[in-house]
Amino acid sequence: MVVTERLIIRTNGNNHVVDLTGPVAEAVARSGLRSGIVTVFVPGSTAGLTTMEFESGAVEDLQRWFEEAIPATREYRHNLRWGDQNGHSHLRASLIGPSLTVPFQDHRLLLGTWQQIVLVDFDIRPRRREIIVQIIGE
Amino acid sequence: MVVTERLIIRTNGNNHVVDLTGPVAEAVARSGLRSGIVTVFVPGSTAGLTTMEFESGAVEDLQRWFEEAIPATREYRHNLRWGDQNGHSHLRASLIGPSLTVPFQDHRLLLGTWQQIVLVDFDIRPRRREIIVQIIGE
Amino acid sequence: MVVTERLIIRTNGNNHVVDLTGPVAEAVARSGLRSGIVTVFVPGSTAGLTTMEFESGAVEDLQRWFEEAIPATREYRHNLRWGDQNGHSHLRASLIGPSLTVPFQDHRLLLGTWQQIVLVDFDIRPRRREIIVQIIGE
Repeated sequence: MVVTERLIIRTNGNNHVVDLTGPVAEAVARSGLRSGIVTVFVPGSTAGLTTMEFESGAVEDLQRWFEEAIPATREYRHNLRWGDQNGHSHLRASLIGPSLTVPFQDHRLLLGTWQQIVLVDFDIRPRRREIIVQIIGE
Repeated sequence: MVVTERLIIRTNGNNHVVDLTGPVAEAVARSGLRSGIVTVFVPGSTAGLTTMEFESGAVEDLQRWFEEAIPATREYRHNLRWGDQNGHSHLRASLIGPSLTVPFQDHRLLLGTWQQIVLVDFDIRPRRREIIVQIIGE
Repeated sequence: MVVTERLIIRTNGNNHVVDLTGPVAEAVARSGLRSGIVTVFVPGSTAGLTTMEFESGAVEDLQRWFEEAIPATREYRHNLRWGDQNGHSHLRASLIGPSLTVPFQDHRLLLGTWQQIVLVDFDIRPRRREIIVQIIGE
């Protein structure tokens, strides 16, 4: 059994971290499936998905790390070719990846207590993101 | 068909790399499923999963890279807010990700010869980890 | 329903980025399955998979970042132990990961318009890669 849903998420861009755990858990509950996997996927090449303890300190640490390891301010070939300003956004997104797979059992995501599913939007402007939540199970 | 198992893994923390290939392959064999995917998932926000050639040199290289790229010794907002010491652990875990999906066919994981499934525990103390191994297939 | 295919990809190594989107989309179409997930997996410990806007500027940015963040020229324990030269290749591959899961619906991958599935071969010589494309759905 496969159930495909979409979440519409409005972000501020610029490393905005959005907690998707609630909506993903609700999609799993709505599916009626007891156990299986949920694949969360962000279409687009300037955002990524991972898990973290979603508290403001850890969020700021993540944002700062990306600013330092892949700075917005250096020269990127992508920007030179296309007149864009978001070369760093592309690079950060490729590194963290667009896809996350989380198992569930008895209708419940098997996350840790302090582990949330997050979208990180690396683009340089506010974006309306359509997130795919696809549930496969029985 | 969905089969969900759990592995109990005791780690030393501090970038301890643990080879999970054997137990995951055994879970696939036990499931009786011929082909499909196995999702390996670590609940918690201070450990991650990936694959590597599990030999001591490559393990040390991985550990050193994380020490340098995301040092334990600098200031993290997570630590300031919560009195914790493991801000770097959270960041490393988010970067590498908590989930790994490996296909299998004819009851056999489709890994390379020198490619192992590893847990990396970034926390700063020994941990008892419950790893989810969920098999979906036919 | 599970369908397992293999793609044979010849790379130049040395951070060669190969667009796999076309062959993966064709495998999904051939499967006849309407909706589900495709798992793309690279056996081996010196290559990885992610998504990106596959244009030469972004490709060069990605290659340069890996050269700088995980340089080929420093000393790696893997090389010292085995007389290899590709310690950096292993590390880069573990960071980006060997596996990518992409949902599809109505026989179509749910990628963004400027988002391609790419293999990055970090090894230091040309390689013949066998990529697993496994489709699970209904």
